[in-house]
Amino acid sequence: MVTVTHSFAGRDLISMRDYKRDELLTILDEATLYEGFEQPILAGKVMASLFFEPSTRTHLSFSAAMNRLGGGVLGFADARVSSTAKGESLADTIRVVENYCDIVLIRHPMEGAARLAADNTSLPVINAGDGTNQHPTQTLLDLYTIRQKRGRLDNLKIAFIGDLKYSRTVHSLIETLTHFDNELFLVSPQSLRMPPEFIEELDARGTVYTEDEDFFSIASDVDIIYTTRIQQERFPDPIEYEKVKNAYRIDRAAISKIGDHVTIMHPLPRLNEISTDLDDHPGAAYFDQARNGVTVRKAVLAMLLGVSR
Amino acid sequence: MVTVTHSFAGRDLISMRDYKRDELLTILDEATLYEGFEQPILAGKVMASLFFEPSTRTHLSFSAAMNRLGGGVLGFADARVSSTAKGESLADTIRVVENYCDIVLIRHPMEGAARLAADNTSLPVINAGDGTNQHPTQTLLDLYTIRQKRGRLDNLKIAFIGDLKYSRTVHSLIETLTHFDNELFLVSPQSLRMPPEFIEELDARGTVYTEDEDFFSIASDVDIIYTTRIQQERFPDPIEYEKVKNAYRIDRAAISKIGDHVTIMHPLPRLNEISTDLDDHPGAAYFDQARNGVTVRKAVLAMLLGVSR
Amino acid sequence: MVTVTHSFAGRDLISMRDYKRDELLTILDEATLYEGFEQPILAGKVMASLFFEPSTRTHLSFSAAMNRLGGGVLGFADARVSSTAKGESLADTIRVVENYCDIVLIRHPMEGAARLAADNTSLPVINAGDGTNQHPTQTLLDLYTIRQKRGRLDNLKIAFIGDLKYSRTVHSLIETLTHFDNELFLVSPQSLRMPPEFIEELDARGTVYTEDEDFFSIASDVDIIYTTRIQQERFPDPIEYEKVKNAYRIDRAAISKIGDHVTIMHPLPRLNEISTDLDDHPGAAYFDQARNGVTVRKAVLAMLLGVSR
Repeated sequence: MVTVTHSFAGRDLISMRDYKRDELLTILDEATLYEGFEQPILAGKVMASLFFEPSTRTHLSFSAAMNRLGGGVLGFADARVSSTAKGESLADTIRVVENYCDIVLIRHPMEGAARLAADNTSLPVINAGDGTNQHPTQTLLDLYTIRQKRGRLDNLKIAFIGDLKYSRTVHSLIETLTHFDNELFLVSPQSLRMPPEFIEELDARGTVYTEDEDFFSIASDVDIIYTTRIQQERFPDPIEYEKVKNAYRIDRAAISKIGDHVTIMHPLPRLNEISTDLDDHPGAAYFDQARNGVTVRKAVLAMLLGVSR
Repeated sequence: MVTVTHSFAGRDLISMRDYKRDELLTILDEATLYEGFEQPILAGKVMASLFFEPSTRTHLSFSAAMNRLGGGVLGFADARVSSTAKGESLADTIRVVENYCDIVLIRHPMEGAARLAADNTSLPVINAGDGTNQHPTQTLLDLYTIRQKRGRLDNLKIAFIGDLKYSRTVHSLIETLTHFDNELFLVSPQSLRMPPEFIEELDARGTVYTEDEDFFSIASDVDIIYTTRIQQERFPDPIEYEKVKNAYRIDRAAISKIGDHVTIMHPLPRLNEISTDLDDHPGAAYFDQARNGVTVRKAVLAMLLGVSR
Repeated sequence: MVTVTHSFAGRDLISMRDYKRDELLTILDEATLYEGFEQPILAGKVMASLFFEPSTRTHLSFSAAMNRLGGGVLGFADARVSSTAKGESLADTIRVVENYCDIVLIRHPMEGAARLAADNTSLPVINAGDGTNQHPTQTLLDLYTIRQKRGRLDNLKIAFIGDLKYSRTVHSLIETLTHFDNELFLVSPQSLRMPPEFIEELDARGTVYTEDEDFFSIASDVDIIYTTRIQQERFPDPIEYEKVKNAYRIDRAAISKIGDHVTIMHPLPRLNEISTDLDDHPGAAYFDQARNGVTVRKAVLAMLLGVSR
């Protein structure tokens, strides 16, 4: 009998590519122990939350996770009030901030910023989103929710709908799903197709997928619909935005055609991609994702800080 | 002997209209136990403080109350950095935020927003001000201060001075005073008179009141002067603002005509409505109101969270 | 034998001029006990952090100090969201905020603002920078770092380089160094010379100093180089700024001419005044200053709050 133990203490969480399949499963297993857990095991620990790009949602979710475990939080929500506004390099900011905390959380508009931060400190660094690149704790909470709702992470038919070009959430999750054995449906308008590098990765990993523009061409036995906000701020052309924003709206009528067994996911915030008439549908999982986000982040913070419950 | 016990655990505090006279008295009695009390009875509890409209004063007072009782605070001070800026509905925001906390504090520019928030979560919600409508903890601290200074909440002559049209603080307090038996003097310029719906309510409840434009027509035996900042931001016409802003300024000379026994109240911040030469007047109660605000909010937070000291 | 004990409980820290040489040494000695110290000796204590001018760095450093000692922090990072924006006087703000906390931290663009704050409350007040005047905890951490790196605070040759006109950090440190016996080199362009009032003070105190425009005229046996960012925001003329901003840049080649035994200090953030090729130079002390800032602030907070470890 072989027991494999993974140590996560002191590690960074920058990209899902840095973590192997069994490491991901270890994190998800550990996270189940943090459902509703509120003991101050992180008392005395401090998280620096550096948001060079605003994201109240992610900041609050991590803050809640620290609060629930008794830890402290400091930082800034907006780069305009940071020393960056005075022209300081990111490397310098990190080398100063590491004196204030035990773990660093960073959101930055530039791809690779979180990796650069990690290269400049011995403290664990968590990527809370860098450009259109990675957002690993979002992916972990998505995996956690999929397993919670469907009981497994393999042998699923998963449809991604809407903005597959700019959505960091979708990119990060799809890449991670190549660790598992599923069939993917990629549904988007022509102008918002999955970028070629991700398609190449699916091909290289032998993942089965179909690209389509038509929502209703999705197989009726799809297990999960993962839809995303078409983000105007990522969109260069406002006319193009107006054209596509309503194209993939789903509501109770649309879902009943696909089948009411389906699990409906969304990273939130939503505009009108999902009708509120689905909010009490048994398959609606998007508010569960928000709750699972705190659970998963509690586990990640404790694991990287080397504290176990 | 009949013992009436009220349970406040899990209740919302949206409008003073939702609370009966004896419930208000119970809160005020409970609050006296929180004067200077600083034990961590709310350790592990988290308040989400959602300010869709800035109000440093109210946010800090509630944060101080949580801090003094060992609880945690998270949230935002400015809607521009929240998901609302991305177009999220208030209902969605609340359904996400309820995963981060045990109690929700909300300030919103729109009347009815706090009620809408409460309808979308099972957590207790406290209204920290919605439009020109309600600000119930301000009213509770005002009642607390009145009782502290005058020893009773009935049989008082109370003059409200200045902006009676836009002041949420005045509206909320006057409505609540209809539970008690007092004589009111409503002193304002013609353009800032108490709105008809509040006058109708005073009539319906049989409250004795006098409306007047002239400050010195107030009976010299008035017990309390409650004056308010004439808020430029609520004022549609800047010329009108200039005309009235100095009309009801009070100073030591003015007060000595009314009688030095009077209690002088103001919700703060003040501009020049109250001269600083009154700051050490024995009747000046406005900084006491600020101190009582923390005391009352400690009690309210603990009561709604179902924790007793 | 005479034992002198200083009580710092309840005192303000507004200006280095208010503290005698032996009091400064007592604070520095006490601070050594706080290196890496993280027990919750300030549990239940609350610091109000009032930043009428943004300074993430200072705010985070103080917040880290409170967090490490178990204390709470509340306040605002930006006067635009405070009641000041509604026209409230600083005196009123302080008299309200004193109800929320045990100690007040204030950063304000106006010289004398911290003193005015202290005059309006019985709580201890710490000046976190007022205009171009004082920033006493910056000076304390600088002294702490000098003693840490050179083993003494007397008999040193210290060169100040760059903006000697606008740098609050330099003014505050130079004034304090008049308590000690050192030789100073004041190197700046003509337009950024040390203001006459500081020169007069050096003369009056009999401090030995040399003013120069040329960086390489510094004696090769200088012990410390203290260089500062030439702050564009303090500079009235942008053309003048462009002319001088690169004049005093130091790098490894420049330092090797002066001697590699030198200690290199900078209050951070830096732009390009110090080349990153010096970051792993054994004399580079600027990131140590950042770390020492938390240590010194832990000591100051505990001492003023009357809590000893």
